[in-house]
Amino acid sequence: MQFKDMINKGKNISATIAVCKSNDEGVIKAVVKAVKNTNANFILFDEQPQDELIRSFNLTHDEFNRIKIIQTEDEAHTISECVKSVDDGQADLIMKGLVATSTLLKEVLKDKYNLKTESRMSHIALFNVPEYHKMLAISDVAMNISPNKEQKIVITRNLVACLQKIGIDSPKVAILSAIESVNPKMQSSVDANEIVSYFRKEMPKLEIEGPLAFDAAINKRASIIKNIDSNISGNVDGVVVPQIESGNILYKSLIYLSKADVASVIFGAKIPIILTSRSDSSRDKFHSICSALMLI
Amino acid sequence: MQFKDMINKGKNISATIAVCKSNDEGVIKAVVKAVKNTNANFILFDEQPQDELIRSFNLTHDEFNRIKIIQTEDEAHTISECVKSVDDGQADLIMKGLVATSTLLKEVLKDKYNLKTESRMSHIALFNVPEYHKMLAISDVAMNISPNKEQKIVITRNLVACLQKIGIDSPKVAILSAIESVNPKMQSSVDANEIVSYFRKEMPKLEIEGPLAFDAAINKRASIIKNIDSNISGNVDGVVVPQIESGNILYKSLIYLSKADVASVIFGAKIPIILTSRSDSSRDKFHSICSALMLI
Repeated sequence: MQFKDMINKGKNISATIAVCKSNDEGVIKAVVKAVKNTNANFILFDEQPQDELIRSFNLTHDEFNRIKIIQTEDEAHTISECVKSVDDGQADLIMKGLVATSTLLKEVLKDKYNLKTESRMSHIALFNVPEYHKMLAISDVAMNISPNKEQKIVITRNLVACLQKIGIDSPKVAILSAIESVNPKMQSSVDANEIVSYFRKEMPKLEIEGPLAFDAAINKRASIIKNIDSNISGNVDGVVVPQIESGNILYKSLIYLSKADVASVIFGAKIPIILTSRSDSSRDKFHSICSALMLI
Repeated sequence: MQFKDMINKGKNISATIAVCKSNDEGVIKAVVKAVKNTNANFILFDEQPQDELIRSFNLTHDEFNRIKIIQTEDEAHTISECVKSVDDGQADLIMKGLVATSTLLKEVLKDKYNLKTESRMSHIALFNVPEYHKMLAISDVAMNISPNKEQKIVITRNLVACLQKIGIDSPKVAILSAIESVNPKMQSSVDANEIVSYFRKEMPKLEIEGPLAFDAAINKRASIIKNIDSNISGNVDGVVVPQIESGNILYKSLIYLSKADVASVIFGAKIPIILTSRSDSSRDKFHSICSALMLI
């Protein structure tokens, strides 16, 4: 699966996206691009008037009609009205605008809505890295801070489910550490080994390996030099990082030093939540919209 | 400071390098390149005969005379004879060949040699990343697994001393986390804040900031969007990573996905130790030799 194929498939899906705190140039730019290039419709929630900002973009009458603007009383209402719109079926998914991630997710998880699942939510970043031959998914780079083994199992399960929804029937997944053997002093290597054992029992068809260092995961030559016997080396679809710092640093390095494109979503609620970093480009925000459309 | 300037300066320094377990094509290739392009001499220690491998490279008589070959009885002697050669002044620094890092370092730290200092040893990787405007140092990506605050202070001090030896009188250093504020749930952010406080008191002239996320450290635009007031954003000389996994994953990503060159050394013993990854290219091993020559 190539990143561009996923983006293109997403473009053809009709759905309505509720945007929480949308009054931001970068967010509106991505919304406008989505209206012009996909079948998505939008409901924008903000306590600030946002008509003028939207009208400053060059939209046709028909395009403008695909954007519903809701001005709310205050931030609390912006968030609750936005989540409610998804809960009562007006919208199909949520996009995070200029609101704190934790505030938005806390609302989504409230008992009064029917949006929770049995699963823990996790963040999945889908990358197009020029130096890698296919799309690379990385999780969790933004939400679960220091996941234990059980939480990493959920993160891995969410990652596999996400990749399968996108069309990768049999994803190849690496559980990352800094080494390929188990060292009791390096908890990530112990976790990786146990996670792989768990999935080999629970999902025997899943191609999963770990602990693997990142070079062995993405480069076959590296694993040959290191004398590692791996079926997925150099060809992984997704990697699970040891903790938020390694994921976050990798994410930022790929964006700024590897010229990568990214699409980001929160997976594990009943609906996908489009969640990008404030410093991500509107191009990345647009890609996130397209990829999330595939996950409904 | 540009990476190539450091490499060029190192080339002019005369010194003798003891190579531990040198009988490896990649290591010998780097040694031969160093003999042809620097003023360094070598003593190669291995229990396997290595004359034939060395002679297979195209060396002149004078070049060959700058390489002393010592064949030892067994691996234990290879390691002890190599370290002894530095301890008794025959050689000025050590290069790691096909030997486990921990085995070599254990020998270096033995009381019978005079190679220990008061400091903890740490690994420093010096990068030339095409998308970054100057040399970027990263520590510790390979040695200290899960350093606590005190250990990170030593890692930071070693990093600063290394950068100053290379010629960066006033290095700009970022202590990395995944966020820019202190969150008690994210230990790396707590550590970073305390490390920065420590250095502001102990080395008031040092330009050090943290916690910083990697994007804010290496890109000014990212810190502006995030509304972070930083004097070093977009211009750091060195970063301290939260733990070995984030450093290792970043290292491998820069090599394989950002087309970076790297030079790696262990700093904190009386002599620098050239320590590269098995999967690093002989070009990187050559760069490591040149950079280590600046650190004697």
